Amino acid sequence: MSARAGIVVTGTEVLTGRVADRNGPWLAEQLRLAGVDVAHIVVVGDRPQDLRAALAFLADTGVDVIITSGGLGPTADDLTAAVVADFQGRPPVLDPGLEQQIATIIARLSAGRGWQLAPAATAAATRKQALVPDGAGVLPPVGTAPGLVVPPADGRTGPPVIVLPGPPAELQPMWPAALDHPAVEQALAGRAELRQRTIRLWGTPESELAATLRENAARLTDLEITTCLSGGELEIVTRFGPAAETAFDAFAAVVQTTYPDTLFSADGRTVDDIVADALLAQGLTIATAESCTAGLLAARLTERPGSSAYVLGGFVTYANQAKHDMVGVPLDLIDRVGAVSAEVAEAMATGARDRVGTDLGVGITGVAGPGGGTEDKPVGLVHLCVVGPGKTVARRIRVPGSRADVRNRSVVVAMHLLRELLAP
Amino acid sequence: MSARAGIVVTGTEVLTGRVADRNGPWLAEQLRLAGVDVAHIVVVGDRPQDLRAALAFLADTGVDVIITSGGLGPTADDLTAAVVADFQGRPPVLDPGLEQQIATIIARLSAGRGWQLAPAATAAATRKQALVPDGAGVLPPVGTAPGLVVPPADGRTGPPVIVLPGPPAELQPMWPAALDHPAVEQALAGRAELRQRTIRLWGTPESELAATLRENAARLTDLEITTCLSGGELEIVTRFGPAAETAFDAFAAVVQTTYPDTLFSADGRTVDDIVADALLAQGLTIATAESCTAGLLAARLTERPGSSAYVLGGFVTYANQAKHDMVGVPLDLIDRVGAVSAEVAEAMATGARDRVGTDLGVGITGVAGPGGGTEDKPVGLVHLCVVGPGKTVARRIRVPGSRADVRNRSVVVAMHLLRELLAP
Repeated sequence: MSARAGIVVTGTEVLTGRVADRNGPWLAEQLRLAGVDVAHIVVVGDRPQDLRAALAFLADTGVDVIITSGGLGPTADDLTAAVVADFQGRPPVLDPGLEQQIATIIARLSAGRGWQLAPAATAAATRKQALVPDGAGVLPPVGTAPGLVVPPADGRTGPPVIVLPGPPAELQPMWPAALDHPAVEQALAGRAELRQRTIRLWGTPESELAATLRENAARLTDLEITTCLSGGELEIVTRFGPAAETAFDAFAAVVQTTYPDTLFSADGRTVDDIVADALLAQGLTIATAESCTAGLLAARLTERPGSSAYVLGGFVTYANQAKHDMVGVPLDLIDRVGAVSAEVAEAMATGARDRVGTDLGVGITGVAGPGGGTEDKPVGLVHLCVVGPGKTVARRIRVPGSRADVRNRSVVVAMHLLRELLAP
Repeated sequence: MSARAGIVVTGTEVLTGRVADRNGPWLAEQLRLAGVDVAHIVVVGDRPQDLRAALAFLADTGVDVIITSGGLGPTADDLTAAVVADFQGRPPVLDPGLEQQIATIIARLSAGRGWQLAPAATAAATRKQALVPDGAGVLPPVGTAPGLVVPPADGRTGPPVIVLPGPPAELQPMWPAALDHPAVEQALAGRAELRQRTIRLWGTPESELAATLRENAARLTDLEITTCLSGGELEIVTRFGPAAETAFDAFAAVVQTTYPDTLFSADGRTVDDIVADALLAQGLTIATAESCTAGLLAARLTERPGSSAYVLGGFVTYANQAKHDMVGVPLDLIDRVGAVSAEVAEAMATGARDRVGTDLGVGITGVAGPGGGTEDKPVGLVHLCVVGPGKTVARRIRVPGSRADVRNRSVVVAMHLLRELLAP
């Protein structure tokens, strides 16, 4: 059994969905890499008693360490340090060296941004952020807020609490120092390697995979297998200790044999990785023409550094006239078959390719909804086409769900059409 | 005191960040609209004992109702219904009518998608999804999985558990039936109206606002105020009972008086709402030319239904040659001042406007990183320009953080430049 951790994500803005939590999942993955398992992430608002209840719950589950994110800012609703101090029985004490360090950082930031800060307000904010639970470890600030490692007070038992700031750009660089802190090292001394492998299928229903898992259940007892449908992809994630590597290999072989046509990644690579690697390896360039997805595919293709080696340009052809003017779709074609049609998707793909002078072109046109659907062309109907050197692949899909669902699923399908076209 | 609820989001894929949770925040907002406060969202993997611990924790905090999302699928790791049945003391019983209903749905789905399902696998999956805790209420399936309302068994105490499926497209349509169920109605009988107002500032540091809150603390005791920085916007969300409406009005007036230049929304509207409303009201159209953001601004402007009334088209001009060919940026200008410059941003904005024939044009060019930075043009440097009828606004920004941070922040700044240009 490996070491276990619990995570508390604080902030009413996260609890109410105004800000999406990026820290819980990031910390869970870092912990896994360090051989530490996570059982619960608790999201809690800015109320001291609710935060305290979350800490008590996680401590009661017997975790070896608790990590909190957020609630270290200058406003009064930022109360994590004070609540953790109280929970661990270590009263907050002003750290004058830290106060000076934070003041220096704020002065530098303000100068850079041209802010005129009121001195009294700034001093109060600085003092609040320099209050440290008595005897706790301080992790140097990346932004203005320091992190903390707070073990239980002498004579008490329980896990140490690692207190980290909310902004991911501050939390992530602070993580190695947290993991290296002696109190954390000691708490996690029992950790063991936990391996994780991901297999991805495109086009197999989850119920089919469930049957395969049931049939092989006896051979899978040492593997923790979870499956999830993510944007139409069926993801199989398996976690196991080093001793179960052979059991995993046998399971992977079963999946490979059972689903040879839909298995597209057995090595953890995403469809984005596969498309980018293929474009680079084959020295090909690409241009896009998007209607209903309106730039989402171009944005996705350029998410990774270095994508300028193959993405040259793209068009968002939202209006019919723009489809004609920007990528040369004949207006009489649109009149004849409609803007949402296989013919227009192909004309957009070839137009984008020819106008930018790339090897590949993608065209996407559909009815994102919620309005604009007809009996012939209902909401969710999308035509996609990818043209490449000597090869064309096209698809007509019908996506259920919201406007965002239709747009997002169309981008995933486009990525898989690119993967198909680029396959050796 | 209003009624309280706890939420459990299940699924190892959520816990490990492979899928972002959209249900917890959505449910929290629906509950608020129904006058029910949420203290905790617990994310838990697909392990029965961890789910059970989460249910016990929330019940112990004294909530009036617990809502779970996810874990109702056909695979063995989908175990929510069984764990809740056990937790509430109601053993699972096969519901033959429900089994028939699910079988009919799956047959229809398979026919539509052309799937050839193995009959035995399908029957097993159907049977699993038709197991209902004895005496629980069934919420009709939207996808294949029914929802459940599971009160504690006779003679036990505790909150009822509402069991909902994980896909948002299934969960959301099922919510009204869950809220109307007699056991839920009864549990939430004590609920009271909880109002929420949002004020948004653009350009005020959080420490300044903290000082304003401290100075006015005595007048704010009946208001629950949380502040958060979201993409550079400072959001102030205030929650209160009907009796505190006057106290909120006084607080809003203080913010209005103190920050007249940075307050851009006092009525809850987002910058997206304000820009869309202004474009519609003024009958203006818009085109974009994006380099580092590569379609993200066009995608954001078209998120809302009806945006085709003002978004006509856009360009992703990733390569320098594309900047020239697609929107007419002179290559000698790029040679002279560089692709990341105020001049090129303006040329992109006017080029997009002129080529598509719109009233407004936006140009964005920057160094998204992590590579490609120089001393003069470091990573995070972005130039933005919006040209409109008789008016141009431009900005040079330097964004810290990751490639995604640089791209996302640039889009937010572009939205605010549009807001400025369109302001009466």
